[in-house]
Amino acid sequence: DKPFTLFGGINVLESRDLAMSAAEQYVRITEELDIPYVFKASFDKANRSSINSFRGPGLEEGLKILEEVKNTFNVPVITDVHEPYQAQPAAEVADIIQLPAFLSRQTDLVMAMAKTGATINIKKAQFLAPHEMAHILTKFQEAGNDQLILCERGTSFGYNNLVVDMLGFGIMKETGFPVIFDVTHALQRPGGRLDSADGRRAQVTDLARAGMSQKIAGLFLESHPDPSQAKCDGPSALPLDKLKAFLEQMKAVDTVVKEMPEIVTG
Amino acid sequence: DKPFTLFGGINVLESRDLAMSAAEQYVRITEELDIPYVFKASFDKANRSSINSFRGPGLEEGLKILEEVKNTFNVPVITDVHEPYQAQPAAEVADIIQLPAFLSRQTDLVMAMAKTGATINIKKAQFLAPHEMAHILTKFQEAGNDQLILCERGTSFGYNNLVVDMLGFGIMKETGFPVIFDVTHALQRPGGRLDSADGRRAQVTDLARAGMSQKIAGLFLESHPDPSQAKCDGPSALPLDKLKAFLEQMKAVDTVVKEMPEIVTG
Amino acid sequence: DKPFTLFGGINVLESRDLAMSAAEQYVRITEELDIPYVFKASFDKANRSSINSFRGPGLEEGLKILEEVKNTFNVPVITDVHEPYQAQPAAEVADIIQLPAFLSRQTDLVMAMAKTGATINIKKAQFLAPHEMAHILTKFQEAGNDQLILCERGTSFGYNNLVVDMLGFGIMKETGFPVIFDVTHALQRPGGRLDSADGRRAQVTDLARAGMSQKIAGLFLESHPDPSQAKCDGPSALPLDKLKAFLEQMKAVDTVVKEMPEIVTG
Amino acid sequence: DKPFTLFGGINVLESRDLAMSAAEQYVRITEELDIPYVFKASFDKANRSSINSFRGPGLEEGLKILEEVKNTFNVPVITDVHEPYQAQPAAEVADIIQLPAFLSRQTDLVMAMAKTGATINIKKAQFLAPHEMAHILTKFQEAGNDQLILCERGTSFGYNNLVVDMLGFGIMKETGFPVIFDVTHALQRPGGRLDSADGRRAQVTDLARAGMSQKIAGLFLESHPDPSQAKCDGPSALPLDKLKAFLEQMKAVDTVVKEMPEIVTG
Repeated sequence: DKPFTLFGGINVLESRDLAMSAAEQYVRITEELDIPYVFKASFDKANRSSINSFRGPGLEEGLKILEEVKNTFNVPVITDVHEPYQAQPAAEVADIIQLPAFLSRQTDLVMAMAKTGATINIKKAQFLAPHEMAHILTKFQEAGNDQLILCERGTSFGYNNLVVDMLGFGIMKETGFPVIFDVTHALQRPGGRLDSADGRRAQVTDLARAGMSQKIAGLFLESHPDPSQAKCDGPSALPLDKLKAFLEQMKAVDTVVKEMPEIVTG
Repeated sequence: DKPFTLFGGINVLESRDLAMSAAEQYVRITEELDIPYVFKASFDKANRSSINSFRGPGLEEGLKILEEVKNTFNVPVITDVHEPYQAQPAAEVADIIQLPAFLSRQTDLVMAMAKTGATINIKKAQFLAPHEMAHILTKFQEAGNDQLILCERGTSFGYNNLVVDMLGFGIMKETGFPVIFDVTHALQRPGGRLDSADGRRAQVTDLARAGMSQKIAGLFLESHPDPSQAKCDGPSALPLDKLKAFLEQMKAVDTVVKEMPEIVTG
Repeated sequence: DKPFTLFGGINVLESRDLAMSAAEQYVRITEELDIPYVFKASFDKANRSSINSFRGPGLEEGLKILEEVKNTFNVPVITDVHEPYQAQPAAEVADIIQLPAFLSRQTDLVMAMAKTGATINIKKAQFLAPHEMAHILTKFQEAGNDQLILCERGTSFGYNNLVVDMLGFGIMKETGFPVIFDVTHALQRPGGRLDSADGRRAQVTDLARAGMSQKIAGLFLESHPDPSQAKCDGPSALPLDKLKAFLEQMKAVDTVVKEMPEIVTG
Repeated sequence: DKPFTLFGGINVLESRDLAMSAAEQYVRITEELDIPYVFKASFDKANRSSINSFRGPGLEEGLKILEEVKNTFNVPVITDVHEPYQAQPAAEVADIIQLPAFLSRQTDLVMAMAKTGATINIKKAQFLAPHEMAHILTKFQEAGNDQLILCERGTSFGYNNLVVDMLGFGIMKETGFPVIFDVTHALQRPGGRLDSADGRRAQVTDLARAGMSQKIAGLFLESHPDPSQAKCDGPSALPLDKLKAFLEQMKAVDTVVKEMPEIVTG
């Protein structure tokens, strides 16, 4: 588990060209820094606040772009699915398919995803306690899939706010499965804008450092060349030109904490 | 809006006989008390904590039972749908179809439900602020459906707990749409049992009275002849033999508050 | 416990004349409506957000005003104390002395208040669960005072917000002590203004009705002839000219719910 | 601000011997690790859950012990005060006096502490947002004292739980004052035991690492030679024999993050 794996990319497949250009930069920088890398992008944003919000190219077109990224750069890819019928086609392209947070308790989706044999990234819902993730892990295991990853992305804290409970990482690590941290979505302020979530992009490095301090298996990150123009979650996205400086810091924290022996205090 | 409408029934269609027997009692008692009534039951519990939990008879068999209830007792029925393909068949039987709380931001499901022309009951997600419901109403309206109901069922409050913010009723009523209160699910303690939610059944009358004090359009209630044996959410269900006493009190509160003029204090 | 007792008055003793004028109106209206009444006012606001905020006339001058109210209108009075030395002099005038929410765990203050023999109104801190109030009751009882009242005033809910958990009334009533509801402070938005708390005055009637639906012993209310000019907590205060209409509604709810038999559902 | 300062010691002055023995170990280890050090202990636990809980030796006897620690080991000391009259005598011995979280808005206590001229450690109340600390800083400054430290110790998260919002450190650092992290009290589970708070001692190293990742001025820590026998907050205390290993890790995290340049992403 040393160093961490980066699940990095863009929020939604705004265009084939954005995906290729972003992937090129992620691949180059993670190679320079010797950080294992998985490209992330969504083909559909299925739960936008507004019906008029941009959703993406859809399943078919989206998977084509992901396949081009995968073949061009020789990297694994991850994408999220929203309905059972999407699991199998997505898994034919993606190495890892992701269970969205709001849908993390939908049994049919879990079953369809499990059957693909792909590795599954389970986003922890904003309304679940860390120890409740054990139920979802069991669902996947009973459906025959134990290639599972748990992903923290913040917990509801009053209205229109999320908080990351650092103690949750340790609780989830006790399951024995890899735990990763989606710093981008943890920065959201749900309902914070008129038609969409607001975010706290200015604090991305601070929050990511805190996550990396927890000896986690991976970091999930979305960037954009111009966050103010991003079609979804720009307020939480890292400006792409800061990626290298950002990852250097994350690797430094990860390296120093993973060298530390456990201190038994309980 | 006087008196309130009862959306009452059972959690899940455990059997045809339970549904018919419960419906018979609901119908008889609401007629005696002159309370408008809609029968509620789910054909599928799609997000149970465990894969081994009882889910129900499924769409086809479930709709048959709902149709029998509807025809036998001449009452409207409401049921919840979980995937877009279920909306149309459910709406052919049910007068009202319900958008589940966890799924309340899934655009495709919203669209499919809107197109049926049925009345929609929108459960407010545990992770949403009352004012954010405006986005979901707009989604339905833009999809051509304005027969909409908003339903409060509690908000995440720390881990494994829900709280009902009484001020949320007033905020949601400002949308102009009817607002109802699902007292049963608001009593849940999510993740409170080893394999399922716990509940606070002993406090159902207290919490329902508080909701009724808010001049709301309706009450959503699940009962069971023996809550300790219920296959889902028994810890939050009203014992069916208390239904009449319970509804008498609810009607009394509703009547007294709806006679009160608004006092402008703001 | 029928009907409820009103603990009503003004936030802080802005002046002798305001106190006398407000008391006159409270006394007249509660007599008309046959509601037992206790006059409430603070001599010192000891925890304002800003050092420049108005604090009040202080202990000595404040007690003089309270005494004049008490003697003129022949009503019991309640006031809050903040340090142990204030308990005895306050209890010489006030029939009930109040333990502030933020201070509700300060043992020395509890002891000093207990020793006076006065009835004690214990505000539930925003950071305490309802069942934790049992500890504070025990503290007072072990110090020899069992004339105790518990007062709900909202619980921290994320940042800058309070929520009233209706289920807390029932939990606190199980202690056997009278439970009252401070609707005014429950309306606060802590830190919601640049230099002070904001409030949700427009919703005071809605929230008070919800509280009254819980068969409680009393209602705690602050009013002001012109809330926009009040020196403290105006955003949460009832306009004094709405008092009669407001109390008529509260009495109606209280009466109807207290006539209802308990329904055992647990 | 490199490296961080340790505000370390014991919860309450259980005895003169415990204080001297603990101080000896803290001093020796912080000298070995070259970490600036301030000895912390309370003379009175003024807000225990139960009246029968151990409170400590009191002001006079407690200050004697603190003075002996100070003179013997030549270290600065910090202690907390609870009433205005304690500020001056405490400041005659202690280099830093601490404003307790529950009392952080009590104006008289703030004024009395400010006047001593001592450095003030302001505990952030569990019910305050990070940006609200600006009000308390202003109170101290207007009272003539700007030797101020802000201390995070967790925020109310539902009932009986605290969460540390990592984004709060950055918000408080914008005030320009040093920000420290009380990891011990952030581990509390308020009301988690029959008569007192429970704690999450087993996770002290994880949570402290997260705090240190935020480039903070100091760490506040309580230890005990045998936490299971501690008279207060043992469930949150670090076993004293783990102190050296623990501090080595904290210094390593602090060093690596403070070498990192800020990345502007906002």
